[in-house]
Amino acid sequence: MTRPRLDLPSTPAQAAAFIEHTLLRPEASAADVERLCQEALRFGFRAVCLNPWHVSRAAALLAGQGPFVVSVAGFPLGAGLSRVKALEAAEAVRQGAFEVDMVMNIGALKSGDAAAVARDIEAVVRAVAPCPVKVILETCLLDDREKVLACGLAEQAGAAFVKTSTGFARAGASVADVALLRAAAGPKVGIKASGGIRTFEQVLALLRAGAERIGASAGPAIVRG
Amino acid sequence: MTRPRLDLPSTPAQAAAFIEHTLLRPEASAADVERLCQEALRFGFRAVCLNPWHVSRAAALLAGQGPFVVSVAGFPLGAGLSRVKALEAAEAVRQGAFEVDMVMNIGALKSGDAAAVARDIEAVVRAVAPCPVKVILETCLLDDREKVLACGLAEQAGAAFVKTSTGFARAGASVADVALLRAAAGPKVGIKASGGIRTFEQVLALLRAGAERIGASAGPAIVRG
Repeated sequence: MTRPRLDLPSTPAQAAAFIEHTLLRPEASAADVERLCQEALRFGFRAVCLNPWHVSRAAALLAGQGPFVVSVAGFPLGAGLSRVKALEAAEAVRQGAFEVDMVMNIGALKSGDAAAVARDIEAVVRAVAPCPVKVILETCLLDDREKVLACGLAEQAGAAFVKTSTGFARAGASVADVALLRAAAGPKVGIKASGGIRTFEQVLALLRAGAERIGASAGPAIVRG
Repeated sequence: MTRPRLDLPSTPAQAAAFIEHTLLRPEASAADVERLCQEALRFGFRAVCLNPWHVSRAAALLAGQGPFVVSVAGFPLGAGLSRVKALEAAEAVRQGAFEVDMVMNIGALKSGDAAAVARDIEAVVRAVAPCPVKVILETCLLDDREKVLACGLAEQAGAAFVKTSTGFARAGASVADVALLRAAAGPKVGIKASGGIRTFEQVLALLRAGAERIGASAGPAIVRG
């Protein structure tokens, strides 16, 4: 059984439906968030992705208009306590987020503590159910064996997606990593590619490799082609 | 009234008492934390500074031996909700941290919402009192007017220290910023310089400018001179 493949976009403008229009810089202001939401409406992006402090503002601006709000938990380091990540995720949903992108406990994986990695994800999944949780693996910090292991832990813990990158580490999404994760994950799990995605050609290559969502701060440039 | 000045270190080895030996990389493992704590004991660093997931391990390793544990909240972006930052700080203390370095809500400052910045700091200060809170301003993202404003908000909200940088943004501590903050802050507030500090000469210059604490991951190299 394979996951049903979405139709690839034929034009840059059609890529908008795959893009989560992302603004996670620490200095983002309320005005920056308003601009992001206006762009999401104008270009038809699937969602906006924001730090928790901005979620209620974005949710109010976008209510009932198409793009939904994604927020983050344990971002971008993933080295917090599970109960804090779970509260952060639940509060983001309470403020209007529909999906939460959490960062895996990378240090726990590096310490050989797969059980801690799994419990951490489960805590967040449970805190926001039925809202979907994406688990950011930060692939540039992992070897291929660790990527596959992390993908399996996320799937078993109930994640809806695995996501390649925070955009804050030394590298972002690669076609090879997306293909590896797509091959490792079962059909219930989607792949979100993120980090360093700036062109329609990159988007197409990542979607062909098996990504279903694209996280990017360069959405307007991508869909203009 | 000025804050009493500590004696400057005469030798690199004496700098250890000012240094918070820092490991905030997302991929830090349990073994990395053990090594950090052993170095803190061997060189006599003032403290170790770690992400929350590592605090209980470090606190157990260092108990009663000199160096204490510092942790972080809302790190490194500062754009979370205040109640989450407050819980994160309180949980870190519960796990054994003695001080908490929180990141200011930089986006709120950029949005002109000084009241939100202050409430956010107050929530953390209250959550961990009487443990000291340091407020990370991320000076490289602020102009001088914003640095002085942020310093005043931190002071009014009960912060024990203002801290220059997370080490995750495009620049770290500068002598000019430390001098500016030292001039802006009242005598109850200390200055922690952090980010990009790699030599004893840098440490001396920052202490001369008014810093009392140095956050660095290069502590062993610094104290070997």
